[in-house]
Order: sequence, then C-alpha cells, then structure tokens
Amino acid sequence: MATQKHYKLHYFDGRGRAEQIRWILVQGGARWEDRRIKQSDWPAIKPNTPIGSLPYLEIGSEKIATSAAVAMFLARELGLAAVNHLEEAQVQMMWDVTQDVFNQFAKAAYAPPETQADLLQAYSTVAMPKYVTFIAKHLEGGNDWLVGNKLSMADLVCASLLDSQQGAVNQGIRAVKSVSALVDRVKQLPNISKWIANRPPSDY
Amino acid sequence: MATQKHYKLHYFDGRGRAEQIRWILVQGGARWEDRRIKQSDWPAIKPNTPIGSLPYLEIGSEKIATSAAVAMFLARELGLAAVNHLEEAQVQMMWDVTQDVFNQFAKAAYAPPETQADLLQAYSTVAMPKYVTFIAKHLEGGNDWLVGNKLSMADLVCASLLDSQQGAVNQGIRAVKSVSALVDRVKQLPNISKWIANRPPSDY
Repeated sequence: MATQKHYKLHYFDGRGRAEQIRWILVQGGARWEDRRIKQSDWPAIKPNTPIGSLPYLEIGSEKIATSAAVAMFLARELGLAAVNHLEEAQVQMMWDVTQDVFNQFAKAAYAPPETQADLLQAYSTVAMPKYVTFIAKHLEGGNDWLVGNKLSMADLVCASLLDSQQGAVNQGIRAVKSVSALVDRVKQLPNISKWIANRPPSDY
Repeated sequence: MATQKHYKLHYFDGRGRAEQIRWILVQGGARWEDRRIKQSDWPAIKPNTPIGSLPYLEIGSEKIATSAAVAMFLARELGLAAVNHLEEAQVQMMWDVTQDVFNQFAKAAYAPPETQADLLQAYSTVAMPKYVTFIAKHLEGGNDWLVGNKLSMADLVCASLLDSQQGAVNQGIRAVKSVSALVDRVKQLPNISKWIANRPPSDY
C-alpha cells in the first residue's frame, strides 16, 4: 500500500497568497500541514526557502516555490488539474489571470498614501469588473465549471479570490448571476464549506 | 497516422516575451508559424485575443494565453517538460523566476526618465546577479541541465534570457563558468543554433 504523501505549506499567518492553495489541498483531500510563520521569524527562515519568498511547499526532502508552480503541482497530484494538455493550459491561464488581479489589489493595498486611492479605485472599477466579465464568459452556455465542465483548480482559485472581496466590489460580483453561482457552488463543496467554517481567524 | 499539430504563435515583431517560447517550439521540432503583429494593427486584433495580451498560441480552433500557460503547454506537448509532477514543478519554478527577472528589466526599460537609471542599476547589480547565483546553484555537482539532469524547457528559457544580455551584465554572466557553459550548451543544440542564425532581425 502506498503511503499517502504529506505536504507542508509554508506561509505567513494570513490568507493572502496561500488561501487559494489551501483550497486546493482541502478539496483534494490531501494530508497537509498549515505552517504559519510569524513576521518576526521570517528573516531567520528566509535564507532556507527555495527562492526567498512565501508561500512554498515542502514534500519530504523537496521544497517547491513559486505559488504558481505549487498550485499547478498540487492540482496535478490531487486530480484537480485536467485530463489533457489543452485543458491543463486553460487551468493555468485561469490561475495567471487570477493572480494578475490579486497582484493589482496587493499593489494598491501596500501603496503609499498619495497613490493608494487611485489604485484602489482602478482595482474596483476596472480590474475586478474586467475579471468578472472574463469569468462570466467562461461560464457561458450554462457550464457549471470553468474548464472542461468539471471541477478543477480553476474554480477553486477564482472562487477563493472572489469570495474574499468586500463592500461594493462584492456587490458587483453578486450582480453577475453566473459568477456568484460559481462562488456559491464552490463554497458548498463539503470540504471547502468545512474549511471556511473552521479555518484560523487572521487579519488578512 | 496522426496528423502533426500545427501551432501559431502570435506576438509583436520582436523577441521580447516570445523568444523563450520560440526556443521551445524550435527545440521541440514543432510545426509552427511565427505570426508577427505590427504595432499599428494591434488595437484591431486585441479584442480577438484570449485575454487582450500577447503572446498567445493558436492550435486549430483553440487559443491559449498566458505566456506561462503557453510555455508549459508546449513543453508538455513537445517532451520538454519533465517525467513526474515534482520535476514539472521545478521546470515551472525556473520559468517563474526567469519571468520575474525579465519583468524587472521590462519595468526599467519602460520607466520614466527620472527613475530609469535607478531601476536599470538595480536590475544589473541586484536582480540579475541574484538570478545567476540561483541558476549556478541548480547546476552544482556538475549537472549539465537544470532539472532532472536532462534537457528541459527550463534550460531553454534560462539560456534565452541570459543570452540576450549586453555589456557589463553579459560579462557578469560570462564570469560564472557553470552558467555560461549552460548558455553555450543550449546555443549549440542544432535546432537552436540554426534558429539563432536564421531568425528575423528585430529592434528588440
């Protein structure tokens, strides 16, 4: 009998760039540890990470960065990638587009005060609506899922980002029925629903 | 007999973000078209691309963006990815780290005059030397290739970026023997050598 692999995901004590990856681990039924690093411990830990950044994944003696490589790796390991090269490319495209939107939010969140309002405005009124339209386009024709009409990592990462939005941005998402239905469909998956109910509270 | 697939790579008339992907197509012996779009034609073409950006790949009726998804897709199709999930993740990590360095160069190249000198300086003296050290680390122990000690997409994209560097940056790369040997090894592959000798001249 094969021993089930044990994954350790290393990240700060927050959702941030790790939460989408956690949803993949959770939905895939992986045996995993949620290693949360204190900001004060990070300088000592950083030199021992694969590329000096978080998140990264540890499997036995191996360590994998970047977040994109970790996400695609886990999707393949846990049966959440796709059945052929073309669908796998579509899954990765969804990941990349999602990170691009996330990065625009992160840029705004950490911007100096004099540019922050403009960046947040551009995020809320341009980047996010464009993303929602993009997702809606991939659900046209009544598809329940984004790639190959079966649940994949693409659905998990998109729903995870969309679900984290607040206020007017969240209302804008809710107004697009196909997209808000996707978010609900993912959140109602038993593993995800249980994770959301029990995940550690955090500031971000 | 299976018909060999036909790939069309769409990009501007330059090396830029497409050259690394072209090296994958060339080394993989693909049947492909090098579609080069004039800047003046781009506004009309943009709405018909998968996510409004270049490069993208066309295969029959399918179109794939992003450059990362295209690169990994072609690597898998053409036998230049890797033999297991873990090595494939390492190949993707090499891609991501390489793009990160490329993006820092692009940011400097398109920066306003008042910040450009500082950004170019940071690229030349921090980002690129760090990248070269990273590559050298993966060649330790006398490996000829970056992942699994066999030629993969990782070698092609790293060598393509490193080979495009000029002046003092190029001299810095040449000073690290294992890294400059990797670049030479890739450039001496018959398909790559022929491509470099015959590729269209371009401004960037």
